[in-house]
Amino acid sequence: MRIAIASDHAAFALKAELSAWLADLGHEVADLGPDSAASVDYPDYGYKLAEHIAAGLSDRGVALCGSGIGISIAVNRNPAVRCALVSEPLSASLSRQHNDANVIALGARLTGIEMARACIETFLSTPFAGDRHQRRVDKLSNPVIRQPA
Amino acid sequence: MRIAIASDHAAFALKAELSAWLADLGHEVADLGPDSAASVDYPDYGYKLAEHIAAGLSDRGVALCGSGIGISIAVNRNPAVRCALVSEPLSASLSRQHNDANVIALGARLTGIEMARACIETFLSTPFAGDRHQRRVDKLSNPVIRQPA
Repeated sequence: MRIAIASDHAAFALKAELSAWLADLGHEVADLGPDSAASVDYPDYGYKLAEHIAAGLSDRGVALCGSGIGISIAVNRNPAVRCALVSEPLSASLSRQHNDANVIALGARLTGIEMARACIETFLSTPFAGDRHQRRVDKLSNPVIRQPA
Repeated sequence: MRIAIASDHAAFALKAELSAWLADLGHEVADLGPDSAASVDYPDYGYKLAEHIAAGLSDRGVALCGSGIGISIAVNRNPAVRCALVSEPLSASLSRQHNDANVIALGARLTGIEMARACIETFLSTPFAGDRHQRRVDKLSNPVIRQPA
């Protein structure tokens, strides 16, 4: 599978570990940065990852920051992407079954390496359940955002 | 505090419990639905809650669905809102300190009532840390979304 990965500085070391592991599993990994642990802004990397997935350049994405919260918000600004912030595999499974999530977000300061791997394994192997869930996913691709009067 | 709450059918019972509890605590609660446990689509209620918060009609929001994933994606489609999906109070605290989150999402099928209350208490009482985090939050309000070529 083609998998893109992006982070902020807080998750730089976890990104390196997960990238190497995903490549060892035989996946084609696109590391979208950052290239060092110097301080960066997570929205920049979240938007870059979302754009990459929306363009079809990878099949799935992995988004990492300290808590996973900031970068998951950034990725979900893009209506072509569905990013699930998780800390255990059951949520990773549900995000695929019900939400057809194409990006998984994890918090490097909250979730350890083995739990992160277990979440990603489940995320990559669980199919979308379709059916009534498809209608809801379609609504996520066409958001209704009315500006306040 | 003025607090809006919305859910899907899977979280209808949790919404009722949390609404009553928040009102008992003295908050002004706006229940944006649904009004029964009949099947609905979570994006509809996520967009409604986001619009309500963006319009300044409540100070904070609580978004609930089965896993919390679907409705958190929907709420985060609105660039005026920052929705943090959490399952424990440390994440709720970090979402306020670092991300100035104005909506908290919880999964009714994954997080029990006492843990949900603890997350919401922390979410309501933790201040934003400002400083370098403000620049990142500003970027979440002005997303860069280029359509694929």
